Amino acid sequence: MTVTRYQPGPRMSQAVRHGNTLYLAGQVAADEFATIEVQTQQVLDKIDALLAAAGTDKSKALSVQVLLGNITDFAAMNSVYDQWIDKSNPPARAAFEARLASPNLRVEIIVVAAVE
Amino acid sequence: MTVTRYQPGPRMSQAVRHGNTLYLAGQVAADEFATIEVQTQQVLDKIDALLAAAGTDKSKALSVQVLLGNITDFAAMNSVYDQWIDKSNPPARAAFEARLASPNLRVEIIVVAAVE
Amino acid sequence: MTVTRYQPGPRMSQAVRHGNTLYLAGQVAADEFATIEVQTQQVLDKIDALLAAAGTDKSKALSVQVLLGNITDFAAMNSVYDQWIDKSNPPARAAFEARLASPNLRVEIIVVAAVE
Repeated sequence: MTVTRYQPGPRMSQAVRHGNTLYLAGQVAADEFATIEVQTQQVLDKIDALLAAAGTDKSKALSVQVLLGNITDFAAMNSVYDQWIDKSNPPARAAFEARLASPNLRVEIIVVAAVE
Repeated sequence: MTVTRYQPGPRMSQAVRHGNTLYLAGQVAADEFATIEVQTQQVLDKIDALLAAAGTDKSKALSVQVLLGNITDFAAMNSVYDQWIDKSNPPARAAFEARLASPNLRVEIIVVAAVE
Repeated sequence: MTVTRYQPGPRMSQAVRHGNTLYLAGQVAADEFATIEVQTQQVLDKIDALLAAAGTDKSKALSVQVLLGNITDFAAMNSVYDQWIDKSNPPARAAFEARLASPNLRVEIIVVAAVE
């Protein structure tokens, strides 16, 4: 089984494919001062782009972890997440509070997806 | 490789199978006001039921993440977890503190398991 | 697909192989009173040893989660992590704050790696 890395950098790749499984790095918002709703949308946009780069899409998402800087953002995050999700093909999910690398970041999402 | 979803809902599936790997959603207790010991048992019961629905069982658990609302519940959670585990086939594990979606929830467990 | 466990104990295995995928337990420092830099190095040394025991190495790391007891250790952890990483083969990564099983532990790292 081959390993393919997407957007490799000095610290991490943004995604790594192994066989038919794709592991995404934790994605955070481009604008860390935006609202939780905007940050969530920016994160999901990045995820869609990475999935597309690897030849897959959100309908193949297997497992999602949603990390919130403050769990009180749970409902607001979901208001965007629930619009994004492929309702015919929902992944497994867990969501919990975790302080993130920058104190302004409100949400980080980790995805494992199938390819093909 | 086919993808099969178990108990799909509008936000997530409770489990997703990809090839021979099964990803469970984070499982929480049915009774969020119960003690940590009871919550842990309820979570493990849900996990057993999901594994069975997918044709596998705890002897095939590969990786477990235990999230505790308060890390001081570590020993009490383990008192139940250690009874549950298949001691001939222990999975890899990590346990850490993370505030959960509801403030009363004391434990959430995420499992990746083999099928076949 | 066979399942192989490395260093199985009464609560967990330190690593579990399923097919060509290896799941490591969360690794923590041998000396929990050491500095964040020393703890990070000890964790990475343990990871290298587990990967070697399973016939693989850090160039095959697919996905890494770095849990920090205090997110203010982010830069100091990275100063060691960035030296360790195989810069030709960086894994996907997420890093976040999570209180760990012992209050003195400053870092725990979870790895998923390819074998072969």
